[in-house]
Amino acid sequence: MAHQATISAPVNIACIKYWGKRDTSLILPTNSSLSITLNQDDLRSTTTAQCDPIFSPGDKLWLNGKEEVVKFGGRTATCIEVLRGWRRDLEKDKGLEPLSTYPLRVASHNNFPTAAGLASSASGLAALVFSLATLYSLPQSLGQLSLVARQGSGSACRSLFGGYVAWREGTQPDGSDSIAEEIAPRDHWPEMCALICVVSDAKKGTSSTSGMQRTVETSTLLQHRLTIVPERMSSISHAIKERNFDSFAQITMTDSNSFHAVCLDTSPPIFYMNDVSRSIIAMVEELNRVSGELGYGRIAAYTFDAGPNAVIYALEKWMGLVEKSVRRWFPQEGIVEVELEQEGNKVLGKFDERVMASWGKGAVKSLIKTRVGDGPRVLGEKESLLKDGQLKNS
Amino acid sequence: MAHQATISAPVNIACIKYWGKRDTSLILPTNSSLSITLNQDDLRSTTTAQCDPIFSPGDKLWLNGKEEVVKFGGRTATCIEVLRGWRRDLEKDKGLEPLSTYPLRVASHNNFPTAAGLASSASGLAALVFSLATLYSLPQSLGQLSLVARQGSGSACRSLFGGYVAWREGTQPDGSDSIAEEIAPRDHWPEMCALICVVSDAKKGTSSTSGMQRTVETSTLLQHRLTIVPERMSSISHAIKERNFDSFAQITMTDSNSFHAVCLDTSPPIFYMNDVSRSIIAMVEELNRVSGELGYGRIAAYTFDAGPNAVIYALEKWMGLVEKSVRRWFPQEGIVEVELEQEGNKVLGKFDERVMASWGKGAVKSLIKTRVGDGPRVLGEKESLLKDGQLKNS
Repeated sequence: MAHQATISAPVNIACIKYWGKRDTSLILPTNSSLSITLNQDDLRSTTTAQCDPIFSPGDKLWLNGKEEVVKFGGRTATCIEVLRGWRRDLEKDKGLEPLSTYPLRVASHNNFPTAAGLASSASGLAALVFSLATLYSLPQSLGQLSLVARQGSGSACRSLFGGYVAWREGTQPDGSDSIAEEIAPRDHWPEMCALICVVSDAKKGTSSTSGMQRTVETSTLLQHRLTIVPERMSSISHAIKERNFDSFAQITMTDSNSFHAVCLDTSPPIFYMNDVSRSIIAMVEELNRVSGELGYGRIAAYTFDAGPNAVIYALEKWMGLVEKSVRRWFPQEGIVEVELEQEGNKVLGKFDERVMASWGKGAVKSLIKTRVGDGPRVLGEKESLLKDGQLKNS
Repeated sequence: MAHQATISAPVNIACIKYWGKRDTSLILPTNSSLSITLNQDDLRSTTTAQCDPIFSPGDKLWLNGKEEVVKFGGRTATCIEVLRGWRRDLEKDKGLEPLSTYPLRVASHNNFPTAAGLASSASGLAALVFSLATLYSLPQSLGQLSLVARQGSGSACRSLFGGYVAWREGTQPDGSDSIAEEIAPRDHWPEMCALICVVSDAKKGTSSTSGMQRTVETSTLLQHRLTIVPERMSSISHAIKERNFDSFAQITMTDSNSFHAVCLDTSPPIFYMNDVSRSIIAMVEELNRVSGELGYGRIAAYTFDAGPNAVIYALEKWMGLVEKSVRRWFPQEGIVEVELEQEGNKVLGKFDERVMASWGKGAVKSLIKTRVGDGPRVLGEKESLLKDGQLKNS
């Protein structure tokens, strides 16, 4: 029977955004970033890696059931080659079975639709790297694996850890210190929840890979953003350590806006947020204004990646209110609007309707509710996507 | 018969934006700005000032036919007091009739609807200041009058000149060098045209007065913007002097985007542009991409003030194409769509439809076509809005 490992890896959503590379082939960022790993029970990439001398020569890769060509010299091939090399060293040192010489079969699957607009490359590459490391019984630390995942897809390095994760930009030209590390484990602050608002957008967006390079080349404000980020990294780490949601929310929203500001300052300008996104911002700002006036501080934080979808962070006790608000202002198809009241809390009765546009059904297409989660998990054979080097159910 | 003067003054639209005050009572800006004065034949404020000893005591002001209270210590009152003081000095020096002691009657009227979203305070205050200066036969230069208009409404100082106008931020604490001046007269580059796209927006916007102060207080990127503006002022002045539209357009669009980027970087973020605005940007960028590939360089430049309306600058020879493009992509109610072709020029056949959202009728409510224009004009009695201190037709 083939040697195998099956891994699931989580999605992460940055609070301090990664935008801009100082080295495009090693994927070295122009600034450090920080993310929250989301719960794999809700969103995950699952990857099975197998190797066997009886497989036909050459590696094969399936993505969501479709075979993909592993381009020589491409990012996925680079990750595979580094890990295979580490296995080769291990075999030499310890006289192990030469798995590194066996053809590989890798199958990967995301449990969320591509249409959800969530970057699947982070969880996908993290699962790929961790599945090979497990298959090859590599002794390397998660930090060392994060160097490999980073070269597959920058933010993938953060998906190797659960909880609250920083990606340090590093200073070495070879990228050896551009590494991900855990700031705090999930259990330090397990009440952190996330509501992903999937926003309709007819327009073709700018890919993040090309967008961030255009910003590096043309935005004059980016240089200033880079001088601000270190202070933000330190403040938000502190907020997480102190479980200070008010401060966490303020920094998260500010950095999201700063990121989109440098996109707008790019030539030609890049817009990822649309009118629905803007209106979600207005809603969260209103929620926070009202809760602040009532002495609760900020209770929700929006953040937007390279698309119109909002991710709203809130602590568990407030998430019901946040979700009700989203459903109230952005009714989904087939969902009955709910009244804005929770345990006698009528906090939303004073919403300023003049600043809130009213959206028709479907402007927010669907919602995904999730929360802070753990890192990659090793799964059992029952969950393997492959059998004897072939896709199951195919 | 009452002494009187009737003045019309133009609207101006900035290419380098004024955003932020270093002194809110003197209205001293955090950066220099530069605008184009639009043609008064299209858009203007008309103001008649009269004074007569037989008028009942106290000054009166009508705005668009409605009486307004001149608040003591307010900005309008400040302008009137400065000009009256200058008249008083003149009377003392030259023994002139004591007009400064007579009650004033001032009527002002804009020929464009408030709904057009054009700032009427600039043309209105410029007309007020110039009408009093004319009524009082003041010897002060336009530059000196611009110091007074500035204190009424910052950008009003630029509406005292025709053509291409700079407002120098100045360095004096008393504002004595924060003055407007002509960079080039209208006749230097008379081919400059403007198309104002009035965009529907249901949402209440943030007023520019409160918005710019919030940016000064909360945006970290604003400080960086301020270091960039001097170079832009100098480059765009050079482009205007050389009649280099390609460079003019590039700087104008970049500065508009930089201004909206610092609005987005404000806490809470300020959005003036909406999805229709974004789509107008995409259209102009497409026009310029296509014209650039054909060797014409940029042929149009968008700029957005504190609202969703676009002003598109283009030289006369391209304005037909620009207008047709706007009508093609943003059909107005009651307007038949026109084919995208001009004198055999099929340049727009290659529009990338994937980046252009399609808008329904009315997303752009109406269009105002205009062009570079001259400064305030002295009008005759026929155009006077007042008769014997009373509104005509009232």
